Parts: sequence; structure tokens; C-alpha cells
Amino acid sequence: MPTANIRLLIACPDARGIIATVANFVSDHGGNILEADQHSDTHHGEFFMRIEVEPTGFTLDEINFKNAWKKVADRYNMRWRIDWGTRKKRMAILISREEHCLNDLLWRWRTKELEVDIPIVVSNHETFKSAAESVGIAYHHLPITSETKSQQEKRLRDLLDKNAIDFLVLARYMQILSPEFVASYPERIINIHHSFLPAFAGSKPYHQAFDRGVKVIGASSHYVTDDLDAGPIIAQSVIHVDHRDTIEDLIRKGRDLERMVLATAVRQHVEDRILVSKNKTVVFE
Amino acid sequence: MPTANIRLLIACPDARGIIATVANFVSDHGGNILEADQHSDTHHGEFFMRIEVEPTGFTLDEINFKNAWKKVADRYNMRWRIDWGTRKKRMAILISREEHCLNDLLWRWRTKELEVDIPIVVSNHETFKSAAESVGIAYHHLPITSETKSQQEKRLRDLLDKNAIDFLVLARYMQILSPEFVASYPERIINIHHSFLPAFAGSKPYHQAFDRGVKVIGASSHYVTDDLDAGPIIAQSVIHVDHRDTIEDLIRKGRDLERMVLATAVRQHVEDRILVSKNKTVVFE
Amino acid sequence: MPTANIRLLIACPDARGIIATVANFVSDHGGNILEADQHSDTHHGEFFMRIEVEPTGFTLDEINFKNAWKKVADRYNMRWRIDWGTRKKRMAILISREEHCLNDLLWRWRTKELEVDIPIVVSNHETFKSAAESVGIAYHHLPITSETKSQQEKRLRDLLDKNAIDFLVLARYMQILSPEFVASYPERIINIHHSFLPAFAGSKPYHQAFDRGVKVIGASSHYVTDDLDAGPIIAQSVIHVDHRDTIEDLIRKGRDLERMVLATAVRQHVEDRILVSKNKTVVFE
Amino acid sequence: MPTANIRLLIACPDARGIIATVANFVSDHGGNILEADQHSDTHHGEFFMRIEVEPTGFTLDEINFKNAWKKVADRYNMRWRIDWGTRKKRMAILISREEHCLNDLLWRWRTKELEVDIPIVVSNHETFKSAAESVGIAYHHLPITSETKSQQEKRLRDLLDKNAIDFLVLARYMQILSPEFVASYPERIINIHHSFLPAFAGSKPYHQAFDRGVKVIGASSHYVTDDLDAGPIIAQSVIHVDHRDTIEDLIRKGRDLERMVLATAVRQHVEDRILVSKNKTVVFE
Repeated sequence: MPTANIRLLIACPDARGIIATVANFVSDHGGNILEADQHSDTHHGEFFMRIEVEPTGFTLDEINFKNAWKKVADRYNMRWRIDWGTRKKRMAILISREEHCLNDLLWRWRTKELEVDIPIVVSNHETFKSAAESVGIAYHHLPITSETKSQQEKRLRDLLDKNAIDFLVLARYMQILSPEFVASYPERIINIHHSFLPAFAGSKPYHQAFDRGVKVIGASSHYVTDDLDAGPIIAQSVIHVDHRDTIEDLIRKGRDLERMVLATAVRQHVEDRILVSKNKTVVFE
Repeated sequence: MPTANIRLLIACPDARGIIATVANFVSDHGGNILEADQHSDTHHGEFFMRIEVEPTGFTLDEINFKNAWKKVADRYNMRWRIDWGTRKKRMAILISREEHCLNDLLWRWRTKELEVDIPIVVSNHETFKSAAESVGIAYHHLPITSETKSQQEKRLRDLLDKNAIDFLVLARYMQILSPEFVASYPERIINIHHSFLPAFAGSKPYHQAFDRGVKVIGASSHYVTDDLDAGPIIAQSVIHVDHRDTIEDLIRKGRDLERMVLATAVRQHVEDRILVSKNKTVVFE
Repeated sequence: MPTANIRLLIACPDARGIIATVANFVSDHGGNILEADQHSDTHHGEFFMRIEVEPTGFTLDEINFKNAWKKVADRYNMRWRIDWGTRKKRMAILISREEHCLNDLLWRWRTKELEVDIPIVVSNHETFKSAAESVGIAYHHLPITSETKSQQEKRLRDLLDKNAIDFLVLARYMQILSPEFVASYPERIINIHHSFLPAFAGSKPYHQAFDRGVKVIGASSHYVTDDLDAGPIIAQSVIHVDHRDTIEDLIRKGRDLERMVLATAVRQHVEDRILVSKNKTVVFE
Repeated sequence: MPTANIRLLIACPDARGIIATVANFVSDHGGNILEADQHSDTHHGEFFMRIEVEPTGFTLDEINFKNAWKKVADRYNMRWRIDWGTRKKRMAILISREEHCLNDLLWRWRTKELEVDIPIVVSNHETFKSAAESVGIAYHHLPITSETKSQQEKRLRDLLDKNAIDFLVLARYMQILSPEFVASYPERIINIHHSFLPAFAGSKPYHQAFDRGVKVIGASSHYVTDDLDAGPIIAQSVIHVDHRDTIEDLIRKGRDLERMVLATAVRQHVEDRILVSKNKTVVFE
């Protein structure tokens, strides 16, 4: 029983007739396009497309689709992916000692605003064990020192495998993941950084913002890459501040920004609205 | 020589296969779709689409298109319009005594940010005669009293006809146009109202806002209909205010909102990005 | 042991020398002003002031203050109030069936972002009984029918009295309180309305907003008065929406606005930052 | 004949009783405080204050004030300045090839929204000669090469002296002023940078923003210091962008941000609302 529509995402060099080709392919196999978005990046000559197809009537299943679609995809040199909408994505939350993003995600999940499964919460601290367990989510405490880091990352991988996790959300997780780990989950690790990147990358961004005397602060959600806080940005938001705002005020106001921005990015990922190219995102909202 | 791409806008009852049909039609006549946007209003069962087609290669001219397209349009019961991009739209500005919107539109036009022709400015006052004439635009002074109103509206119509005006912009024009006049220019008269409609319709909205003690003020641009300040909203913007803002501050801050919002709405109209249905707009930005 | 600074709020007809008089009064009694805000409403000839005084060193206690201050207050015909910062304000939350505002307030309270005591949550439904009780707050179920309304309001008053409640927060409470009840808690009942008032007062504001086709939606927090949704506005916030947003999207986006705006208004009330005059608020932020 | 109220600005180490002392000083000399703002930076132990005093009744003139005020200022170790409101500030605009900020400032000046005198516009290009001269402002063309730079800066200084210029506005002026020049006009040169600093300092910020794929762009107005784009920020504003925005779109949207932000900063400077400390601004709005 599908929980959502079929979603097909495409990125390829720009060319004539792609829309017609895709629309015909769906039509020829009994499908009905409910939503279609496309974008031509004329600067780089790239084409991006996202369609939602009604499952009812579509005559291809996963195996047949792959064969039939291959011709189209090869012809246009497409990168593509499809989500059949038959099961919810499985999300793991990693967290350290700040609660607000976790609390917000759990609330959206519990009230079904966020349509995911959350089998596990993983943390280098024990702080939120009961918060997770009280809503029926397994909590894994993986404390990390410089000695245990690589070993704990291995345990993390095992946890993700065992729980068939589709993507990870770093909800204010203050450990840096190794390049090898990051490489294993391309465009599948979402981080929230508490500044309007690229300003104030690195640690203590609110202190940096306070010292610089900026009149806006922000939060940025991005996919994690090897390059710290430099991955493709998914969502950003800002608010005005002024001289009356202490560092504590910035932190307080920032918490609200962070959870809003992270929730937005997670929703867009869950709904397969994001394509990445050249370290930038196309977000079909 | 085309100045822009061909733009085709469609509204019709939602149905299967419309996107494929439209994309094939373009493709079959040598066209290349550069941009495509669509929207399904599932609440009302309506479908909206906008495509931009590269003029080069497209084998249909205006007359052939009409015949060929008729079959598609009839089949899906479409309302549609096309702009061939061969000439700039012709815009008339109506104004009373506030200068900011006029100044802003003229600046955007003069610097080619706004790709229109502006043959005439019409006003019930003489105030901005030299402002218009100094940049080569004819200024028509049509003073209005209750006695002369219908006669002056006739003169206005003549001016619009003679200058082949495509659409009108009420840039803080403080006269109410008659229902007959409005009916003659459906979705072709753009007004700016200085409040976040539907709050504070009617006169002196900043005074109303001040008295009510709101913490945001706004501006709304909309197509003019018979029902005062109740036409389909194209664009809105707001800013925060507080108890320190006097009525004069609201008016000052509002001026900036008004010119931004009006400029946005005019640009969207000029680029054929707006479809109207059930007194609401679909704006393909 | 004070939990906060002493806060003195003043409203009076504008006159010469008020600031000096107040500053001297504090100084003469060993006090140190840590924060001072004032506002002259030149439109209505009214003066508003808020000061925070360091408790250490201030030689007046509650009883002596009253006598000493009376002369100043009488001379300038002041309305005034003082909070000695010696105990947290006591807040009751009223709620019906929407959880987001309750969850948000409880989270801010639990993490000490919001410095209040919350002895009771009252609802006309049983829905959130365990949510309240699990964090140690008494939950009172007062179901309401047209027959039981006045009797239940009496029970509510008793609960508020017994728990020494200072102010009430209607966190999406869908019952209308009687004029008598409202009159008993002037400027002490905070409501959240899910529109940018005065637009879309009354019921189902998101449906109204959808039908009107606005391009921004908002939320407004205000003190409750006899006149439904027309009390003095404390805080408002808005976000942009467009034709792609369904009613469900408006409701989802609105939830985030509502809890932010309500939390802001509650914090401002708790910190004694709000003065009311002529159905408007002065908020010293 | 005063054109505005007397404005006194103060910065000093935080201490007890400053507000009372200042208020008494004014009161004792027959003055009436119309507006008072203060700010305690508890992080750095600094106190800032701004008052507006009604000229009528105040018994001190410029010379007497200096003597009388000295005792107060010395006692609290104050940096301070006063503007007697007897004449408009004199502003010079420096510009290169972008017109929007110039046009906007001139419009606000011409309509008296901005209460300054603008004796001269200076540019390294001849582009806007007629724009300035047509509204009666002298236009000085100072073309700059690496050879002529210091000589032209000397001519610029002469122009500023001869015209008794109080402060300079760099309205998209693309030449870097020498450290010596900048040092001569501390907190008297206002620049507009087309990014949300500290992100994208230096050249071509919109190109940088496009490449980084940010979801917000911004503009920052700041006082010029030796350190390029690193001076104290006065005002910032941002808007959301997405993948559909080309570099040209960013530039177009940015133009509107830039002129709004610059106009805000200039107004705040003109109204003596800005104090600088530790490379940050306190802006009493």
C-alpha cells in the first residue's frame, strides 16, 4: 500500500525535448503526472526535473521500470532516482547536548507532520535517553574520545545498517564525522549549522556573530561533505538582531531559527525535493 | 525580431496527460521548451500551466498556431493566451499626488530592468508633468470632478486606444474607476494598495493601522475589479513596526514597501507569469 | 531571594522632567537603574516608561515604596505597576485540541527559557492530560456545553484562585470566555489568533486566507477583551505563501508562526515589557 | 532657527546614577527631554545613551554647554557629541557606475524624506553628471589610475573641505580609499556592500553567492575603516533566493536591498542615532 506518490528526480545536460520525452514515458505506461517541476541552469547547461506520478494506473513496477527507463536515461545521460512511495524513509538522529532540534523533530514526527520512521537516536552523551525512549525510539550512547573515535564510528555504521537507515540528521551533533564515513552517505547526512553560512563557519558562531556586530543572525541546513560546513546548502533563514541582544539572546533566538530551518530541510529531503549539483541544491518546493 | 521567448499560459479542468500533450505539441512543431511550470489546484480540480518556448526553430506563426492549437485547447476546455515576444507590452501609468511609485517605475524602465514601453502617464493633477516629460513620456492631465468623471473616463479610454495600451498601472491613483471601465480591462489594471489586504481596505490604511496598533504593516498589489480593493492579489509584502512608529513613520516605511511590491507585480505581469482563477492568482515565478 | 530585577512600569500624561524625577527617586533610595526605556506618544500626549532596578542597594521594600512613590505618581497622574522580582509569575494554560502551542510553551518552560511557574493546564477536552501530567503539571478537564458554560467558568475561576494564577494563556483554546470573566483579568489573558489581525478575525482564518488568495499569512498574539479578536495586539509575525500552498500547507506553516508569536508575547508579558493604552500596546523590547 | 531637536550622544564605562545625572543636568538648565534611549553592554561594561532635548527653554548655548557639561563628562569618563539641530548635515555622495543608490538617495533628498544638504557628487566616471546637475548638485569627475590616485584623493579632500562636508556616502563607489584618507573621516564614511557581511567580502559578492548556492542574499551598510568591508555594521537586510535565481536575478534583487539598507543607514547617521564601540554599532532607532 503506497504511502505517497511515486517521485522521479532527474539531472542531466540540457537538451531539447526532455520534458516531452519524460511526460510521454509516463503517459505511455498508464501514469498520470500530478506534479512536475523543472529547472534549466543556463549558466552550467544543466537540466533538473522532478515529477510526482499517481501510483494508480501506472503499469510499471520497480523491475520493469528500470529496464524501460534505461533507454531514456542513457539517451540524455541522466543521473536519476526514484522513490516508489511504498514505505516511509528511515531516519536516524544524531545529537549531543542541545535539545531543541531533537524535541522539534520528535514533535513533528509524533504529530505526523513529518512522515518518516525514526528507529534510533544516537548520541555521544546520555542526556536525552529518556526523551527518546519515552516515545519508543531506541537510544544509543556512543561516547567519543580521540582514541575511540574510529571504533565508535564503526559501531555507528553497524547501527545504521542494522536499522536500515536511509539518512542521518545531525541535530546539533558536535562531533566531526570522518571523511570515509561521510563518503558512505552522500547527500544523506543533513546538518544544521547555527549561522548564515558561509559566514561564521566552525565553532561558536553566535559568539562570532556577537563579536562582529552583525544585524542579522541565521541558521543553515546543508548536506555534510568532507569540507566542514561547506556542503550544499538546503535551507537558510535569518532574523534581525540589534545591539540590545546579548550572546544569550542570540542563542535563544537562534534556537528557534535552527529548528525551523532543520525541519524544513528534513521535510524537503523526505519528500524527495532536493537535487545536488556542483555543491549546490535545486529544491523543488 | 523577438525581444523575448514565446510564452503560453493555460488554465483548464485537471485531466490526465495534459503535460505530455502540450510538450508533444511544442516538440512536434520544432519547438524547445525552455521553462515549464504547472500547478494543480486539487481543491478546485483546476490545472494551470506556463511554458516558455524558444522562438528559433518553432515552425508555427501566429495564424497557424491558432488553428493547430485549437484542437488541443478544445479537447481540454482550456482558457489560454500566448505572447509571441515580438514586441514590448505597452503600459500606461495613472497617478495622483504621490510620487514614489511613479519614480520607481520610471527608474526601472529607464535602466531597462522593466522591459516595457510607457507611452503615457495620466493624472488628475498636473504635479508630475515635468517628471514624465523630462524622460520623453507624454503627460495627460485629466482633472476629475463628480460632474466630469464619466466624460474624463471616456477621454482616458481614447488615450489608451490611441496609444495601443496593453495594461494600466494605478501608481497611487486616488480616483475610483467605473465598473464599465474596469470591465473593459479585465486582468489588465494593476493597483497598489497600502495595506496587507484584506486588512485596512478603503482609505487611509496607515491611519487605520496606527489606530489598530498592528505590529506589521504591508502593501498589496492586485488586479482591479468592481469590488474595491478586493481583486485578485498578485504580490504582498510586510515589515515589522512598533509603538515608536508614528503615522508619518508608517507612511515613510510604507512607501518603500509599496514601490517594491508594485514593481514586482508589474514585472510578473509583463513577463506573463500570472493566471487568474476564482479571484486568486497563480504566479509562476 | 530575588529571581530577577525590580521592574517599574509607568503610563501618564506627557510632562516635563518625568525621567529626571523617576531617576532621582531611584537614586535617592540607593537604587541603580540597569535598563530604562521610555516612549512619548506625541499623537495622544502620553508618556510611557519602564525601568529595571538592581535589587541590591535599593532601600525601599514593598510597603515603604508604596508610600514614597505615591507622591511622584500623584504629581504626574501615573498609572503604574511594579514587580519586585521575588517570585516567578504563575501562568495557567487553556487549551482545546491543537497541541503545538502547548508543546512549545512546555518545552520553553522545561528548559528554563521561559521563567514562569505553570501550576495548571485547563482544557475542555481530555486530549493532553498525560502530556501535562508527565511533566508534573495538574490537568483539569472542564468540558463545556451551552448549558454548563457559566458553571464551568465558575470552576475555572476557583482553579485560578486556588492556584494563585497571575495570568492565562489561551494556547488555541476554542471557547469564548464571558465578558464578566474577561473583565476580571484585564491585560492578563493572552490569546493567539492564527491570522494577521485585523484580517481574518473569527473562525477558520486559514480557510479565509486560502479563499482570499493572500500571499502572506500570519499569526497575532493579543490580550483578550470583550471584543472578539480585537484586543490590543502584542506580537505578530507573517510568512510568504503562494498558489502552491494548500489549506493544509497554510495550517502547517501557521503552526510554526503561532508558537513563535505566542512564545514571544508570553515572554514579553512575563518580563513586564508591555503597557496598554487605547487598545494598543507599548512593548519595551 | 533650529531644524531639529538637540541630540546628545554619550558612551562611557557603566556606572551608577548616569541616567539621573544626565536627566538632572538637562532639567537644571530648563531643558525638556523628548526622547531618551540607553543601553548597557554588560558584556563589556559600557554604557551608551542618546537623548533628544527640546531647544525651546534650554538655557545653554554651545559655548556655555561645553563648560557646564565638562564636569559631568569628566566624572563619568564620557565620549560624547552633541548636534544642536541648527543646520542640516552636509553629505557628499561618491559613486562609480551603478546608479540605483544614487537615484534613491537623491529621490529621498528631493522629497525631503532625507533631511540633508548634498552640495556635491563625486565620481571616477562622468556617467551621472547630468543626473546630479539636473537637480542642482555640483558633479566632480575625479578619474583615478594607480598613478593619479593619491593626487586625486588630495583633490577630493579639498572638495570636501571647501564644501564643508560632514560625512561621505559611498553609493557603490568602486575605488578603495587610502588608510590616511579613511583615518581623516572616522565614523563619517558610510559604505554599502552588496552581501550580508562578513560573508562575501571583497569583489563580486553576488557571483560568490551564486557559486556558494546560498538561499539568502543580503546587503550591509557600514562605516569604512582601514580593514576592507570589516568596519562597524550599521544596517543589514536580506531576502530569500533559490535555484531559479540567476546571477542577474541576484543583482536585480540586490539592487533593491542595497538602496533600502543604505538609505536606512544614512537616515540613522543623519539623525545621530549611531554610536560606535569596539567595531560595533549601537543604533538607537
